[in-house]
Amino acid sequence: MRSHYCGALSEAHIDQDVTLCGWVNRRRDHGGVIFVDLRDREGITQLVFNPEYSQESFNQANQVRSEYVLRVKGRVQRRPEGTENPDLATGQIEVWGQNIEVLNISETPPFPIDEKLEVGEDIRLRYRYLDLRRPESFQRLRLRSAITRQLRQFLDSQGFLDIDTPILTKSTPEGARDFLVPSRTHPGQFFALPQSPQLFKQLLMVAGVDRYYQIARCFRDEDLRADRQPEFTQLDIETSFLHEDGLMNLMEEMIRDLFTTVLGVDLQTPFTRMPYAEAISHFGVDKPDLRIPLKLVEAGDLMKTVEFKVFAEPAKNDQGRVAVLRLPRGNKLSRKEIDDYTQFVAIHGAKGLAYIKVINLSQGRAGLQSPILKFLPNEVIDAILERTDAKEGDILFFGADKAAIVNESLGALRVKLGHDHGLVESGWRPLWVIDFPMFEWDDKENRWSALHHPFTAPKEEDLALLAQNPAVCRSRAYDLVLNGSEVGGGSMRIFQPQVQQQVFSLLGIKQEEAQDKFGFLLDALKYGCPPHGGIAFGVDRLVMLMTGSTSIREVIAFPKTQTASCLLTGAPGSVAGSQLQELGIKSSPSTSK
Amino acid sequence: MRSHYCGALSEAHIDQDVTLCGWVNRRRDHGGVIFVDLRDREGITQLVFNPEYSQESFNQANQVRSEYVLRVKGRVQRRPEGTENPDLATGQIEVWGQNIEVLNISETPPFPIDEKLEVGEDIRLRYRYLDLRRPESFQRLRLRSAITRQLRQFLDSQGFLDIDTPILTKSTPEGARDFLVPSRTHPGQFFALPQSPQLFKQLLMVAGVDRYYQIARCFRDEDLRADRQPEFTQLDIETSFLHEDGLMNLMEEMIRDLFTTVLGVDLQTPFTRMPYAEAISHFGVDKPDLRIPLKLVEAGDLMKTVEFKVFAEPAKNDQGRVAVLRLPRGNKLSRKEIDDYTQFVAIHGAKGLAYIKVINLSQGRAGLQSPILKFLPNEVIDAILERTDAKEGDILFFGADKAAIVNESLGALRVKLGHDHGLVESGWRPLWVIDFPMFEWDDKENRWSALHHPFTAPKEEDLALLAQNPAVCRSRAYDLVLNGSEVGGGSMRIFQPQVQQQVFSLLGIKQEEAQDKFGFLLDALKYGCPPHGGIAFGVDRLVMLMTGSTSIREVIAFPKTQTASCLLTGAPGSVAGSQLQELGIKSSPSTSK
Repeated sequence: MRSHYCGALSEAHIDQDVTLCGWVNRRRDHGGVIFVDLRDREGITQLVFNPEYSQESFNQANQVRSEYVLRVKGRVQRRPEGTENPDLATGQIEVWGQNIEVLNISETPPFPIDEKLEVGEDIRLRYRYLDLRRPESFQRLRLRSAITRQLRQFLDSQGFLDIDTPILTKSTPEGARDFLVPSRTHPGQFFALPQSPQLFKQLLMVAGVDRYYQIARCFRDEDLRADRQPEFTQLDIETSFLHEDGLMNLMEEMIRDLFTTVLGVDLQTPFTRMPYAEAISHFGVDKPDLRIPLKLVEAGDLMKTVEFKVFAEPAKNDQGRVAVLRLPRGNKLSRKEIDDYTQFVAIHGAKGLAYIKVINLSQGRAGLQSPILKFLPNEVIDAILERTDAKEGDILFFGADKAAIVNESLGALRVKLGHDHGLVESGWRPLWVIDFPMFEWDDKENRWSALHHPFTAPKEEDLALLAQNPAVCRSRAYDLVLNGSEVGGGSMRIFQPQVQQQVFSLLGIKQEEAQDKFGFLLDALKYGCPPHGGIAFGVDRLVMLMTGSTSIREVIAFPKTQTASCLLTGAPGSVAGSQLQELGIKSSPSTSK
Repeated sequence: MRSHYCGALSEAHIDQDVTLCGWVNRRRDHGGVIFVDLRDREGITQLVFNPEYSQESFNQANQVRSEYVLRVKGRVQRRPEGTENPDLATGQIEVWGQNIEVLNISETPPFPIDEKLEVGEDIRLRYRYLDLRRPESFQRLRLRSAITRQLRQFLDSQGFLDIDTPILTKSTPEGARDFLVPSRTHPGQFFALPQSPQLFKQLLMVAGVDRYYQIARCFRDEDLRADRQPEFTQLDIETSFLHEDGLMNLMEEMIRDLFTTVLGVDLQTPFTRMPYAEAISHFGVDKPDLRIPLKLVEAGDLMKTVEFKVFAEPAKNDQGRVAVLRLPRGNKLSRKEIDDYTQFVAIHGAKGLAYIKVINLSQGRAGLQSPILKFLPNEVIDAILERTDAKEGDILFFGADKAAIVNESLGALRVKLGHDHGLVESGWRPLWVIDFPMFEWDDKENRWSALHHPFTAPKEEDLALLAQNPAVCRSRAYDLVLNGSEVGGGSMRIFQPQVQQQVFSLLGIKQEEAQDKFGFLLDALKYGCPPHGGIAFGVDRLVMLMTGSTSIREVIAFPKTQTASCLLTGAPGSVAGSQLQELGIKSSPSTSK
C-alpha cells in the first residue's frame, strides 16, 4: 500500500513519486496552503497541499484531523530555502500531495500524541495503544526487540539451544507465591505458573542438552513492590561442564557484545569481581552502584573501648557494626540538610546520624566540628581521620547499630549523597558479586533459609561446613550488578543427590516434602547428572536500564499496574459461575485474607 | 572442563591431547582392553583403556557403568586398520584414555539409552530427561531451535519487531475454553491465559507498530484430541498497510527461506492458491494433501433424475452432494478390501460405499462391474466415465449424502487410498486456501458462527452481503496447508468500528456483551486504526512435520499427556487449603461436570 515509510525519505528521493501511509500528527493551515505532518513508526514527513497544485487533495486535506489514517500519493520536493527543519530527519524535504485516501478517521484522542506533554500513567496505560504511538514510548519497545535479538544471536553463536519449558507446571519451593490454575481435566487439582524454569533447565542438563537458553516468562503473585510485575521476562541460561569462571567470562562477552551492538558502548572486560563480604563492608549492600565513589569504612575495632555507648555497644557486639562514610567537600551541609539525612536514614532503621565536619586538619580536635567529638579520645579521632583519608572540607557520617541496620542505612545514604552532590560518574559499571553465603538465618521460621535457592551448590572447599557451620558456608553463586541494579543472578547447582538431600534437610524441608515436591529432580540426580550451572537475567530491568527508563512498566508493551491489574483490558475480571463449576472451584472472596 | 565435544573429533585431531566430558554410552571388555563409548550431545567417541598404556585408568574404566558421567583425558589416535566404524562420524579415530575422573555415577536407567529400542511413551515421558539423551529425541529439539531461530532471523530482517504480550489477561471470545487464574490482589476475580495474542497484536497495529511478531505461548483448556496440548506455541505475526497478497507473498518467502536453510529443501514459489470452495469440491476438506493425486468429481447434476433414490435424493437436495472418487488401477480390490473401505467411510458417517469397477472400456456396460449398475441409465454412466477420465482397471467410489458427510467420508477415503496404494508423492506441497466463507450456521445455537474468528474482515466486494446474505459472504482469511496439515492461518482484520459491531451482532454477541468483552478493542478502532492483518503458524505442528515426527509431543521438551498431565513433575497436583483460601477460592471437585 505504500512505497516508503514516512521517516525514510530524504534528499535522495527528491522528484520521486511516493505513496505514504500513516497518522496525521499535526495539520496546519498557513497562507492558503495546508501542511500535514504524517507520522509512522519510522518518523514524520511534511505533506503540502496547495490548491494550485491539486484543488481536490487540498479540499480533502482540509477535512482531516489529528490521528486520521491517510494514504497519500505525492512527489518529494526540496523544501523552500529557509523552511528546512533541522530537528527532523526528513527536514530537508516535503511531499507535495496529489491524492489523499482517508483509510480511517479518529475521534480526538484523550491526550495529544504529538506533544511531549506529561500525561498521567493511568490514562496512558488505559489507552496504551495511543501511548505507544508517541515516538519515545515506541522506541523503548524497538530497543527491547533489538536487545533480545542480540542476546539470542550471541547465544546461538555459542551453541546454546533455545528450548521452551512449560508454563503450566507444578507448585515450586516458594509455592506460597505461585499463581494457581485449576485443571478442568483433573478437578480439585491445580497447575502452577512457574516462578522460573529452574528445575526444567536443570533437567535439560541431566538430559545432556549442554547449553540451554530461553527468554522465559515467569510469574510471581506477590505484593507488588515499587517496580515489580506479576509476570516478567527473564533470559534463562544453563550450561554443563563449565565452571563459574567460564560461565562468568561467557556472560561478560555476551553483555559486552550487547552494549557494543545496541548502544555503541564499549564495556571494559573483565568485569570487577567482588566477594559478597567486601560489597557489604564497603557499600552496605550486595548490589553496589560503583559509579558513586563513596565507601563505608570499618570503625568497630576503634570503638570497642570508647565510653560513648552508642558506638561501643555495637562495636562489641558480634551482630553489630560501626562504620563511617566520608562525603568529600561536605562540611558546608547546613543543620537542616543534616537533619534531612538523619530522617532519611531513620526510614532505614537508624536511630541517629552522628557526624564530624573537618574544618581545619592542622588544628587537631579544634579543627573539627561535631556534637560527638567530646565522647571520642584523640587517638580514635586520629585513626578515623587517617582511615577515611579525610581532607579539609569533608564531613564524616557514622552508623552504629545492628550490622543489618548500619548496612542498609549507610548504604542508602551513600547512594543518596552520591546523587544529591553530583558524584555519580557517567557510564556503566558492571560488577560480579561472588562468594555469597549459602544460608541466612530466618528468625521468624527459626531455621536456615537459602540466600539464593535450594539448588545452589556450596563451594567445594566449604562442603564440610554444611554440617559444621552453615552460617559461614559459601555458595557458588554470582550476581551481575549494573549501576546498583541486580540484572542477573545464578550459581553452579548441586548435582549430587546426597548433597541436595543435605541442603534440603538444613532448610527444614523434610524428606517426604522433598520427595513430594522435588522427587523428580532427586530421581534425575541419580541417573548421571553432569556438573552444571547457569544464570538468569531480568530482561525487563536490563531493558529499563539500557533505555534510561524510570520504570519497568515503560519497557513492557502491556504492563500491569502496581495492584496487578491491566487498565486496558480490565483484567482480572469476573467470570461466569458455570465456568467455575466446570473447573470444580467456587469463588469465596470473603475467606481471603 | 573439556577441550572438545565427543562428536567433534576427527582425523584432524590425531596425536592431539584432548579432554572429553560425557556419558558412558556403552562399555565393553575385549581382549584385555576396555572400550568405552563416551557420548555427548554432539556424538560418540570410542575411548580405549589399555593396561599397557595406563594400568590406573584401565582399573578406573573397569568400574564405570552405563550413564556414568566421565571426564577423560587422552590422546586421539587413528583406529587400527579394519576397526574403523563408518556408521560413526568419529569412526576413524579413538582416544587412548590416560586419566578418568568420574564426575557422577548413575543407577541403571529404566530403559536403555544406547539402543533404538521401542519404549512405551509413558515411561519415556516420566523419565523425559533420559529420553532426551537419545540422539533421535535430542535432534528434534535441536531442529526446533534451528527453526525458530531462522524464522526470527527472517522476520527481523524484514523490520518485524518481536514484542511480548501478556500471559495473564482477560477472558476471550471462546472463553469457555480459557484456563483461569484466580487473583490474590483482586479476590473473586480471575485472569485468563490467552488462547492467542489476537487482540493484543491488533492493538499493537493501532499503536502504529506496523510489523509485529512473537513466538507466543497459547493455552486452550479443551478435551484433548489425538494431538493437542493444553499449552502450545505459535508464531504470531501482524502487519499494517499490507494487503493479503503482500502478506502471503512475504510468508511464502519466510517458509521458503526456512526450508532452504534448515532442511536444504527448495520450495517452489508462489505456492498454489485455492479457493475454499474448490478445496471442498475436489478434496472434501479445507486442508487437502496435494501429494495425493486423487480428486473428488461432482456427479450431482447427473443424478437428479435417476430412479436410484440413494443418489437422486442428495442430488436434488441443496444440502446434499453426490461425488465420485476414481482410484486408478483399483479394480483388483477384493470384496473384503471394499468392505473394509465401506466400514472406514462409515466411521465418517457414510451409509455405504457404492462402486463401479472398470474392467473393459470397449464393452460398454458389460465391461463394468458394480452392484449399482442396474440403477443407472447408460448416458449417466457414460458421462461419469468421461468426467472422471476413467481408464480400464480403475475403480470408482461414490459418495451420496448430506454434503458434509460426503466431503468428510470421501475426503478421508481419498487420503486412505493414497496411502494404501502408494500414491503419496514425495516432497512438500504447500498450499494457500483462500476465499473462506465468513460464517457457518450453528444448528445447535441457531445462529451464525465465525469460521475463523470474529475479527476477520469480509471481502470488500462482499461487504453488502453481511446484511443481505451472510451465508455466501466471503472473508479475507487464508490458511497455509502443508501436506494435508494446516500449519498457519490468518486474515485481514476488521478495522472499522461499525463493521466490527455488525459482525458481532450477526454472531449474536449483544452490544452489552461486546462492550464488556471487547470494549477496549472497539474503543481502539475509534482512534485511527490502520488497515491490518496477520497470521499465526502452529510452531509445534510445523516442527513436527519438518522433523518427520508422528506427534507434537515428540517436538516439545516437556509435553503433557492426552489427559493434560505431566508425568515427569506430576502436574497438576493438589495444593494446600491455605493457598486456596488466600486466593479466595474453594475447591469443590464434586460440582464439576
